[in-house]
Amino acid sequence: MEAEKIFDVIFESEGVCVGRLRNEVTNSARAPFQVARMLATDEGKFQGGEDTAPTPLEFFLTGLVGCLMTQIRVFAKQKKIGISDLVVTCRAHWEAVSDPDAPYAARPVGFEIDIAIQSDAPEDRVRALIGASRRGCFVEATLAQKNDIRHTLRLNQGEAVAV
Amino acid sequence: MEAEKIFDVIFESEGVCVGRLRNEVTNSARAPFQVARMLATDEGKFQGGEDTAPTPLEFFLTGLVGCLMTQIRVFAKQKKIGISDLVVTCRAHWEAVSDPDAPYAARPVGFEIDIAIQSDAPEDRVRALIGASRRGCFVEATLAQKNDIRHTLRLNQGEAVAV
Repeated sequence: MEAEKIFDVIFESEGVCVGRLRNEVTNSARAPFQVARMLATDEGKFQGGEDTAPTPLEFFLTGLVGCLMTQIRVFAKQKKIGISDLVVTCRAHWEAVSDPDAPYAARPVGFEIDIAIQSDAPEDRVRALIGASRRGCFVEATLAQKNDIRHTLRLNQGEAVAV
Repeated sequence: MEAEKIFDVIFESEGVCVGRLRNEVTNSARAPFQVARMLATDEGKFQGGEDTAPTPLEFFLTGLVGCLMTQIRVFAKQKKIGISDLVVTCRAHWEAVSDPDAPYAARPVGFEIDIAIQSDAPEDRVRALIGASRRGCFVEATLAQKNDIRHTLRLNQGEAVAV
């Protein structure tokens, strides 16, 4: 049976440059709720930044771990499964590899996620909860598939063109 | 020609639960630099949270936009291409769809990234820079492929088992 859409999740993010490598990214949620907040990224001095904020990969991994943990807690409540002491650990590994026309190319190697949880519920119900939470995690679902990513470039005062 | 590894990027992140839906995620970079910092996520009151921190998707999108912007700036410097006024906008769209055993499943629809940039360099060099930066962006490279994501579950005092 074809899955039916229940609701949309739509964000618009705008990043501007500040300082050497600091970026200030304003994320505006359009649906299913509305909020706009700014988060800043930077790099350490070793990378040429000024260390005024965490690096982009720290934000990315916080999004992954935080989204999965949130869904485990929200879905446990909806399924009436009592849980406590949830701890999620993620080991993430990428490689920078040679590229003919760049300093390097990024190559994701893999993600290992360990979930520790206390519950009096039967193990099969806890396993089903974890499975449901993985399917319901917007970030994990994104990493689990090859995504449609489109780009436009607007150079100087020209028109935005697909690149 | 097979790409050769230049360096590894390895992070370990540990998330713990605090409050209703707040998660405190400590991200430890293992390579190519070492740093450990905590970032907290929460949900709005409408979602059952206490609104003490941005939502996980805001972190995720900040990681995506921030990583791409950083690589555009770092690679421009290495390629000796003068740029200024870089602005990156990303529209991200997911759907929550029906699931037989969960409140919903997450379905990523797509990402549209607009790059605005000022440069006196020839357009083909700027386009090559954008292409190189996309390949060098660890987050975009992750979203552009289906990733290997492994999970273990440790229930109560049991052993961690693959799930």
